[in-house]
Amino acid sequence: MSKLVEISLVEKQAIQAKKAAKSLSLLSEQEKNEALFTLADHLEKNTQTILAANEKDLEAGKQKGYDAAYLDRLSLTKERVFDFAEGLRTVAALKDPVGETLSEWTLENGLKVKNVRVPLGVIGMIYEARPNVTVDATGLALKSGNAIVLKGGSSAISSNKAIVSVMHEALENTKISRDAVQFIESTDRSATKELFTMKQHIDVLIPRGGGALIQAVVENATVPVLETGVGNCHLYIDREADTEKAINIMVNAKTDRPAVCNALETLIVHEDWLNVNHEALAKAFKEHGIQVHGDEKAVNVFPEAIPAEETDWKDEYLSLDIAVKVVESLEEAVAHIDQYGTKHSEAIVTENDQTALFFMNVVDAAALYHNASTRFTDGGALGFGAEIGISTQKLHARGPMGLPALTTSKYLMVGNGQTR
Amino acid sequence: MSKLVEISLVEKQAIQAKKAAKSLSLLSEQEKNEALFTLADHLEKNTQTILAANEKDLEAGKQKGYDAAYLDRLSLTKERVFDFAEGLRTVAALKDPVGETLSEWTLENGLKVKNVRVPLGVIGMIYEARPNVTVDATGLALKSGNAIVLKGGSSAISSNKAIVSVMHEALENTKISRDAVQFIESTDRSATKELFTMKQHIDVLIPRGGGALIQAVVENATVPVLETGVGNCHLYIDREADTEKAINIMVNAKTDRPAVCNALETLIVHEDWLNVNHEALAKAFKEHGIQVHGDEKAVNVFPEAIPAEETDWKDEYLSLDIAVKVVESLEEAVAHIDQYGTKHSEAIVTENDQTALFFMNVVDAAALYHNASTRFTDGGALGFGAEIGISTQKLHARGPMGLPALTTSKYLMVGNGQTR
Repeated sequence: MSKLVEISLVEKQAIQAKKAAKSLSLLSEQEKNEALFTLADHLEKNTQTILAANEKDLEAGKQKGYDAAYLDRLSLTKERVFDFAEGLRTVAALKDPVGETLSEWTLENGLKVKNVRVPLGVIGMIYEARPNVTVDATGLALKSGNAIVLKGGSSAISSNKAIVSVMHEALENTKISRDAVQFIESTDRSATKELFTMKQHIDVLIPRGGGALIQAVVENATVPVLETGVGNCHLYIDREADTEKAINIMVNAKTDRPAVCNALETLIVHEDWLNVNHEALAKAFKEHGIQVHGDEKAVNVFPEAIPAEETDWKDEYLSLDIAVKVVESLEEAVAHIDQYGTKHSEAIVTENDQTALFFMNVVDAAALYHNASTRFTDGGALGFGAEIGISTQKLHARGPMGLPALTTSKYLMVGNGQTR
Repeated sequence: MSKLVEISLVEKQAIQAKKAAKSLSLLSEQEKNEALFTLADHLEKNTQTILAANEKDLEAGKQKGYDAAYLDRLSLTKERVFDFAEGLRTVAALKDPVGETLSEWTLENGLKVKNVRVPLGVIGMIYEARPNVTVDATGLALKSGNAIVLKGGSSAISSNKAIVSVMHEALENTKISRDAVQFIESTDRSATKELFTMKQHIDVLIPRGGGALIQAVVENATVPVLETGVGNCHLYIDREADTEKAINIMVNAKTDRPAVCNALETLIVHEDWLNVNHEALAKAFKEHGIQVHGDEKAVNVFPEAIPAEETDWKDEYLSLDIAVKVVESLEEAVAHIDQYGTKHSEAIVTENDQTALFFMNVVDAAALYHNASTRFTDGGALGFGAEIGISTQKLHARGPMGLPALTTSKYLMVGNGQTR
């Protein structure tokens, strides 16, 4: 077929992925698992090549003046590469969602109707520094029968290229075409933008990284997006909360891993509870190095608190800071969450089951907790084996996403000449 | 809370809808059903008011020179209004999806995890001429616990205003707030555009109408969209097809209701089958007034055929025209569908089950048919009771969408102090 317009390299790659996706979608679970094991072995064997490429990225990063935390996320070690490989073996052990019959019935005219799970097709993954995403996302995509187009961040370009090159070599010895894994080498932003609108070749985009990246994809892509990410999580300590439970949950949700999306960001406290328990709460803040940013009432109670501004209610800290708001009622707490929550994870501590039920029914979020830490909103913690991310959107998938989130469905109708 | 920016009327309405959605989401199935029955009764009682308003739209339409088919779609009669009302009673009889437990388990630490179906929240419906959508969409939204913001076409403005006004009066006597049904009165396009980006108030946009409207919404909205619509459906008559089944299915899919999205648009015929059956096929075309637009081979076989151009393969006719392509293999047929299909409904006629299986596995569409007409891709025909539309997207819902497509899920976690 002749084309008048010259197509770009990115589009060529997307077309190759689409073609590879077709044969990949027909492979058996065993064939896909064997490919994942081959990938894992080959990554382990070629650790030195990957580490040498990573060294280049680290060198470039140092020259650009990246901070230690950033360089740590970028840095690979033999152990980390072996962890990637082991991750692929874990994914191989997960149940293949493809082919599952979701529903099945026969119409009165004898037409057999079956709704089955099938792969989405081609997944576009747009991500930032961590090179582990290159392997993790590839493993999840291939296991669920999807091809993948990878667009990593420029700071990890050498590492990602080396990893993909090793994976391509490995795929030569499997039933999966190397074309099923495409890596966009261009670090130009225009390459990312091309992916945004490539609806005919790419079935879904998954952004992984900071809020700015995710927003750019959500706002500019015409390809459907699986939105993951921002968790401005609240804990409401009710008037009838148990002191020990409330404080333990607050400390765990805030301090266990402050930089993750299911960590606590704002504490809302009923004033009656606070009047009785302020000393115990102040002690917990102090012991765990938690810096309070409070509303007027909170600042009066906690002398070391900084007065909170609008951004304190609105944004994630991802640190040991916490915003504290004192309320007179459950309704006031819910209204605050409605206004500032990101629909990720919201918790209540109370001994009153009716209050808890109201809170869980009325608050709009992926995960609602009664007397437990928000930290459980996680595919691993919930027993999903592996997760692609935590969806904060309402369509398609909500909350931690396992392999089924990378599938869609098809109606298969078998007849013997039925007409309407 | 003070706002520096003056908010628009459309935004005020969306905020009212969001607020109403919250209490609506907590209503029981019985309360929602009673409201739907009240709406139905009140619409019947106020038929005259609605017909008088419809008269104004028809008058304006005639002056604008709309054609007879358009005016017919716009026109209401007592019977049509009673049909709307009956439609609401049908929706009331459907199973309420809200509250269904999708999965449930307990972690080793005793944390109880439950995934339940909940309403999406606020549905934004953007639609064209037919005033029945105003009632149908409202019924489906309310039954599934959602508020709705209606933005109808300007040509039906008086009819839609009258219908909504009657529904508002009726809601006064129900547990559902009248704010749960918002109608955007402005016929200005900027009002529609406002809805596109109102992510904080509107949970999903559903466009219903022509391809141009749907594309405008898909390409410009940052609010998630449920894409419905275009069906460029193919029928492939295989080398091993039964003559009678093939011709019956072609005639039914093409002529039963040519203007709907599950109607046949392109016939792909294996040349071996055509060599034997061309006379029977030509006779069927002639008897049913079907105009062929053929590729070179088809034009040679059917003397009355018009040579097909690119648009014949690409676009829906929605009429008694059909594009005909002759192929030498199954693979050629599949490649054509891959290139021009809109992933709606695709059919194969063959007596070879292996061929059919390959076709159904490899073709990417919402519905695949073996020896049956594409006309069954329809919520009514499949037994869903009512449908919001037929999704041609892969995320969230694919194919005919019933009430569950208007819901999302929530994880409810109940503990006794669990931390990680």
